[in-house]
Amino acid sequence: MRLFETTDQGSIEIEIDEDIQARQEELAERNRQWFRERGLRAFDIAGSVGAGKTSLIANMVERLSGKHAVGVIAGDVATTYDAERVTGKGARQVLQINTGGICHLDAKLVHTALQKMQLGLDILFIENVGNLICPAHFSLGVEARVVVASASEGSHVIEKHPAMFKSADLVVLNKTDIAEAVNVDLERPIADLQVMRPGLQVVKTNLLAGEGVDQVLAMLKL
Amino acid sequence: MRLFETTDQGSIEIEIDEDIQARQEELAERNRQWFRERGLRAFDIAGSVGAGKTSLIANMVERLSGKHAVGVIAGDVATTYDAERVTGKGARQVLQINTGGICHLDAKLVHTALQKMQLGLDILFIENVGNLICPAHFSLGVEARVVVASASEGSHVIEKHPAMFKSADLVVLNKTDIAEAVNVDLERPIADLQVMRPGLQVVKTNLLAGEGVDQVLAMLKL
Repeated sequence: MRLFETTDQGSIEIEIDEDIQARQEELAERNRQWFRERGLRAFDIAGSVGAGKTSLIANMVERLSGKHAVGVIAGDVATTYDAERVTGKGARQVLQINTGGICHLDAKLVHTALQKMQLGLDILFIENVGNLICPAHFSLGVEARVVVASASEGSHVIEKHPAMFKSADLVVLNKTDIAEAVNVDLERPIADLQVMRPGLQVVKTNLLAGEGVDQVLAMLKL
Repeated sequence: MRLFETTDQGSIEIEIDEDIQARQEELAERNRQWFRERGLRAFDIAGSVGAGKTSLIANMVERLSGKHAVGVIAGDVATTYDAERVTGKGARQVLQINTGGICHLDAKLVHTALQKMQLGLDILFIENVGNLICPAHFSLGVEARVVVASASEGSHVIEKHPAMFKSADLVVLNKTDIAEAVNVDLERPIADLQVMRPGLQVVKTNLLAGEGVDQVLAMLKL
């Protein structure tokens, strides 16, 4: 975890007290244990605004809700639209966290939301706040982090956000159908990922049409 | 300006020392004076990754460089691609700021870059770091902030990022050509802006084709 402070010298990265860093890891571990004790499989879905996080979650919930009790926590700076989009897809419970101005979720915020979760859920999707910078350094204690990027984010999206993509367990490249219209060659981010994270799996999707969702579910063993 | 700190209680907004807030404003004012003394008109171009910030700047530089000495400062977490995209469009000087993990530019970072600028420039475009959250609260001391959003960011992009759009002097809605393909009705963000910021001007663009650039320049009186 990295902490930035704004002083009269501008924004600077400050030394992290190791106790705080250890405490963040403890908070993530507390969530991990919470999930383990309840047999709940939790996933952090991160990415920029418009990448397709909510769409991915809505698609996964729709496919899973027949045989699973699925919960969703949606994080946003403001509004409850993302929660509303997922409601009606069969999720057992949907909670929205509004962070105010904070640009990421953290283990403590998630833990607070977990206190409001119903018993008996077996899958939980947590939608992180929409950007490819801040969430990188905050572990939520989940089984896997999926980072979603869309073709609209350009050919260099991977290299521009190294910390975020280094923190990913699976990458979803969405809106493949508009790649040509926005003049983006998706082979470039895929190649960049193979350099940055050899072996990391990438799924190309077109979530508006539901394409690629089954492959994401298979990768996550869902 | 708002400052967030991560402690063992998670991320929280902390009380701002008024001296620090005043100091940020002083740093912005120092830039403002720097620009004024040199007859340099400076603009902050903010927006999410892939919104079209670099594309807007490249288009504006191309149109202006015949009769103006244009400079560009490009801010990114990592890489120099944005600076490279603008080079060759006729800009007199292009500087790249890599912030490391910091999710916004601030007046001090810009001031440091200004020390490296050539004399004799009369227009400066500053590309902020790509997201719609962090830059909102940091004034760079420029003449106007342009916030660029693309159709790919969804129908609710304005309401989800109130602080950012409240800080805008002009909003550019880009990638209008793919709005239908990504199932977004652009009248929604435009209506939201009129509620949030009555009278704020909005320009619809398709920057890949150069459409709308002249209108942006006219709005900025360039």
